[in-house]
Amino acid sequence: MEGVDYLIDERKKAQFDVEAMKVAWAGSRETLEVSNRMAKLVANDPVFEKFTRPMLGRKELFKNTLRKAAHGWKLIVDLRLTEEEAKWLRLYIDEPAYTDLHWGMFIPAIEGQGTEEQKKKWLPLAQKMKIIGCYAQTELGHGSNVQGLETTATFDPQADEFVIHSPTLTSSKVSKMFMRWWPGGLGKASTHALVYARLIVGGEFHGVHGFIVQLRSLEDHSPLPGITVGDIGLKFGNGAYNTMDNGVLRFDHVRIPRNQMLMRQTIVADASKALSRAVCIATRYSAVRRQFGSRNGGPETQVIDYKTQQSRLFPLLASAYAFRFVGEWLKWLYTDVKQRLEANDFSTLPEAHACTAGLKSLTTTATADGIEECRKLCGGHGYLVSSGLPELFAVYIPACTYEGDNVVLLLQVARFLVKTVSELGYKQPVGTTAYMGRMAALMQNNCAVRTAEDWLNPGAIVEAFEVRAARMSVACGQRLAKFENPEEGFAELASDLVEASVAHCQLIVILCYVYALFLLHKHQGDFLAIGYLTPKQALLANDQLRTLYSKVRPNAIVLVDSFNYTDHYLGSILGRYDGNVYPKLYDAAWQDPLNDSDVADGFHQYVQPILKQKLHSAKL
Amino acid sequence: MEGVDYLIDERKKAQFDVEAMKVAWAGSRETLEVSNRMAKLVANDPVFEKFTRPMLGRKELFKNTLRKAAHGWKLIVDLRLTEEEAKWLRLYIDEPAYTDLHWGMFIPAIEGQGTEEQKKKWLPLAQKMKIIGCYAQTELGHGSNVQGLETTATFDPQADEFVIHSPTLTSSKVSKMFMRWWPGGLGKASTHALVYARLIVGGEFHGVHGFIVQLRSLEDHSPLPGITVGDIGLKFGNGAYNTMDNGVLRFDHVRIPRNQMLMRQTIVADASKALSRAVCIATRYSAVRRQFGSRNGGPETQVIDYKTQQSRLFPLLASAYAFRFVGEWLKWLYTDVKQRLEANDFSTLPEAHACTAGLKSLTTTATADGIEECRKLCGGHGYLVSSGLPELFAVYIPACTYEGDNVVLLLQVARFLVKTVSELGYKQPVGTTAYMGRMAALMQNNCAVRTAEDWLNPGAIVEAFEVRAARMSVACGQRLAKFENPEEGFAELASDLVEASVAHCQLIVILCYVYALFLLHKHQGDFLAIGYLTPKQALLANDQLRTLYSKVRPNAIVLVDSFNYTDHYLGSILGRYDGNVYPKLYDAAWQDPLNDSDVADGFHQYVQPILKQKLHSAKL
Ligand SMILES: Cc1cc2nc3c(=O)[nH]c(=O)nc-3n(C[C@H](O)[C@H](O)[C@H](O)COP(=O)(O)OP(=O)(O)OC[C@H]3O[C@@H](n4cnc5c(N)ncnc54)[C@H](O)[C@@H]3O)c2cc1C
Ligand SMILES: Cc1cc2nc3c(=O)[nH]c(=O)nc-3n(C[C@H](O)[C@H](O)[C@H](O)COP(=O)(O)OP(=O)(O)OC[C@H]3O[C@@H](n4cnc5c(N)ncnc54)[C@H](O)[C@@H]3O)c2cc1C
Ligand SMILES: [Ca+2]
Repeated sequence: MEGVDYLIDERKKAQFDVEAMKVAWAGSRETLEVSNRMAKLVANDPVFEKFTRPMLGRKELFKNTLRKAAHGWKLIVDLRLTEEEAKWLRLYIDEPAYTDLHWGMFIPAIEGQGTEEQKKKWLPLAQKMKIIGCYAQTELGHGSNVQGLETTATFDPQADEFVIHSPTLTSSKVSKMFMRWWPGGLGKASTHALVYARLIVGGEFHGVHGFIVQLRSLEDHSPLPGITVGDIGLKFGNGAYNTMDNGVLRFDHVRIPRNQMLMRQTIVADASKALSRAVCIATRYSAVRRQFGSRNGGPETQVIDYKTQQSRLFPLLASAYAFRFVGEWLKWLYTDVKQRLEANDFSTLPEAHACTAGLKSLTTTATADGIEECRKLCGGHGYLVSSGLPELFAVYIPACTYEGDNVVLLLQVARFLVKTVSELGYKQPVGTTAYMGRMAALMQNNCAVRTAEDWLNPGAIVEAFEVRAARMSVACGQRLAKFENPEEGFAELASDLVEASVAHCQLIVILCYVYALFLLHKHQGDFLAIGYLTPKQALLANDQLRTLYSKVRPNAIVLVDSFNYTDHYLGSILGRYDGNVYPKLYDAAWQDPLNDSDVADGFHQYVQPILKQKLHSAKL
Repeated sequence: MEGVDYLIDERKKAQFDVEAMKVAWAGSRETLEVSNRMAKLVANDPVFEKFTRPMLGRKELFKNTLRKAAHGWKLIVDLRLTEEEAKWLRLYIDEPAYTDLHWGMFIPAIEGQGTEEQKKKWLPLAQKMKIIGCYAQTELGHGSNVQGLETTATFDPQADEFVIHSPTLTSSKVSKMFMRWWPGGLGKASTHALVYARLIVGGEFHGVHGFIVQLRSLEDHSPLPGITVGDIGLKFGNGAYNTMDNGVLRFDHVRIPRNQMLMRQTIVADASKALSRAVCIATRYSAVRRQFGSRNGGPETQVIDYKTQQSRLFPLLASAYAFRFVGEWLKWLYTDVKQRLEANDFSTLPEAHACTAGLKSLTTTATADGIEECRKLCGGHGYLVSSGLPELFAVYIPACTYEGDNVVLLLQVARFLVKTVSELGYKQPVGTTAYMGRMAALMQNNCAVRTAEDWLNPGAIVEAFEVRAARMSVACGQRLAKFENPEEGFAELASDLVEASVAHCQLIVILCYVYALFLLHKHQGDFLAIGYLTPKQALLANDQLRTLYSKVRPNAIVLVDSFNYTDHYLGSILGRYDGNVYPKLYDAAWQDPLNDSDVADGFHQYVQPILKQKLHSAKL
């Protein structure tokens, strides 16, 4: 069976060079090579086996994660891997672990916000993993509202120390709200935490700041005096995020030296990975799966050939590509802002902040929804854990909440947009809002499209999205102006503001025609409501979309092959590279512990007495 | 702490009588009382404890389910519960189990499709649970396409028996596709199955029919000769549907007596239960949760008071009510069709079929999406298993796939709509399509709304939805007419056809203003595209929606109290009746096995060596 490729006919249909696209997707040939090497290293190492993960109890599951992390670190040290290689290695281990927070939050925060002295002290310890750090910001009662945190760091000038303390009020309900709750790696693994708290100096509040606090003994790992720490319990999914020790933490007058205070920062995640995985699985399986439409005893139709399947799947395929390039662009934006700040140029900062906040919200929402749609696209089999989709979904969805609740972020974007519009008279909008500089034209022009092909003109699409975003922002601004108290207006119109923000953020992502036309169809109401499109033009866009789907069809399989994911990384029987789905599904089933015996454990106790009508004398 | 009600202020805001609404939701006072009694019976019985379920390994989990089923059956027998009471009891046990298929599919199929003789033989056995039955239709390779099933039942006239056989072709890939795959209760519990197979008599195919086949010995439960049977392995979620032994089954020339053949039937599920549970949790927690907006050190704003929260939550609350009444109406429809059939009146059958198919698709899709939205509405804490939402989602989502894939069902509705439109000249449309009889008016009239209040007129809303559904169907019909081969046209236009079906089905559900106006806003593109609404009118609808939200707000908590769910049934710390969320979350965390010890299992093996830089000599 091995070596057969059930998707070979599909791959022959390709109309572009898959190797070139792999390079484009990876970013560069070097990256592709490093990533390939690390993917293979992980896939061939039995310690990194993933299949049994969802079957493990919580303790075993966590222990298994500790083992993988230790083994991964050993490889990094033994093979003297570069930082870049280590990053890919961790990615392909493909399991939420305390190391994510250590390398992804704790170390970057010290690098970005520490003084030279602090860096000299903490970075070598952290980089050699002599200490393990996490990022502890959220309280049980305070997530989105960071300024509302209640834990205090009070400066004691005599001792030259801070006293970190979670308030204890008389009511236990209230005091529990002030505990840390959620930080990954905090529950069981971390020795240190970056803790955000209200700085109090001389009785006065001086804002929320970060503090490096040691939590556990470096000798025996037991919690230090004044520290109560534990795991917060089961989360969504089976294996999924339960490999992570998200933690609860409480401080009772814990003292730390003065030089352990830092400042806040934010980090943006890349949404294209998770969506492209799901799309890869759904696309391959849709080409393998056949249902209905057999003529004269011939094979049935591949479900990927149904137009409904295409209209659900191909926009997601397009989004995966769009988000990949948005990710690259965000990297550029980050470097650009950093360089400007070093030159004391703060002018683009608000725009860059709005942009990252908006794109985080937009891409993570679309990705979470997209993974679930991919699961549905696989019919019943998408519901099996062995399809890889349930665990992918369960791991991904908190991204809509952590690093900023998506709705709260869109409200921040809305504030920025409204401000930009109100200042148009005297301030030139920059970056992604530059189009608002052409406001007069955007308020007047209507769409010039006359044929379906006209919709292939990038100018036509971009203009449509610019007009929509501009007019929706202006409309919000006008309605806001009617309120005496602007804050009240903002609260009252919040939903419309969020819709305007979405319109603005989608504009930024409009790189792929398929995705753009799909969005245009989905939100045709906006375009018609602002009077920019006529119904006829909207219909033409839909026609064009249908034509585009048939152009995507022959390339569908190689478009997902270009993501270059190993079967180990995909972790999906439905998404196997070779399309050999059914025998493998069957083999996997027999590995379930329930199939250890023909007659199930519990049968004699709990079923036999029913069948034999002897329940009255049974011990249940 | 017990006895305190943190939501009491909310309950005081109510503007209607919650007790009366409970009766309305339940359907009648008698139903409410039975349901209450059974809910209490279950909640107070420690065997039915649900909290630890997601922590159990697969074998333990399944054994626990067997135990609950046995205990439940014992109560039913010992307390001589009525059928109605038994149904509620099983519902409140609230866990997918083999008994669902036995009582919900196997027995009704025999009741509905069996001959008098068959009923006499099988019903007493099944009703006393001397045998356990399941419903085995889906093959690994054939789900949606039932007519494509490959398992055969060949009549052997000599022996007067059927020979049930799963084809075995030379390629193992192909032969595996013909095994049964998915049926609930099949893997480990059932002794019998209702098997759908191709009937072959004298070498000729006579359609797909149902056969009662014994699978396991009634003595020792071992599989009978010719039968290979097992569990298909882990599914989405933690506990969730993994309490069910969805099974794989293969026949090797299994013989059954001739009198064990039945016929096919379909059953419709009620979507309002799952959505109302999720909405109940999200609404209560949104009233408990406070974030931002504190003035002068006062309490922060309840997140339910944010307009964005309301615009996401309240339409779901309205849908829950709408779906509840749709469920009642479907019951009426079922009785009506049955009575007509008995009187040999087949005239409403196609309409009734399209109607149930469409509503199944519409309500299950909206419910699945709605549960996930409720989870997001709870912020980070919605991701905890103890919120109840992850397991609710995981259990519910397959409803979008089983009993008919939702897209495949919408395509069936589309076929019916297109046919109805094409016959308008000479055939009066009936039932839910009666509005199409006024086609001339619907094609001409435009919306007469002039103020936001006009949108409160039910006539205005219903007309808008009628016009939309009618014009979209007609447009599809016109485009189809351009194809020479109608089937090709249908395939090509499938996506638009599905959109027209959705428009028609939503019309049926338009009972609640909030839900209707929400849908109108969400799909304003359709209304504008068909030229029925002006942008100004769409805006007025949105204004009215905002006003309605503020009217819903004071009643939100009692609207969900009216569902009358016990805390045991809800199974959610966030959705507790008393709103005492935080201390309970905290207590629950400490029950996770990871918190058994301060230092995690695996620390000494896998973390200590890292921290001590002794990984080289560690045994991983
Ligand atoms: C898996 C996971 C891992 C995490 N890891 C970490 C970690 O390592 N470190 C850490 O510090 N934290 C972590 N967190 C916590 C995370 O950062 C918070 O959950 C997040 O900030 C959201 O806050 P919240 O949960 O308080 O949601 P809430 O703010 O309570 O949101 C509840 C609802 O209220 C709405 N809402 C809130 N404010 C407003 C407003 N002003 N206007 C309108 N609507 C509003 C939201 O949209 C949402 O619908 C993690 C969370 C998860 C789920
Ligand atoms: C939890 C669970 C419990 C179940 N319990 C039972 C049970 O007790 N007994 C039983 O017999 N079965 C059971 N099933 C099986 C269930 O009935 C099937 O999964 C369902 O019928 C869908 O078929 P499928 O999985 O083959 O999907 P497919 O038909 O393979 O669907 C895959 C994709 O193709 C698309 N597609 C298919 N045909 C068309 C078409 N003609 N036009 C356009 N698009 C199309 C679908 O929309 C979907 O996106 C269960 C399934 C689950 C998940
Ligand atoms: Ca588990």
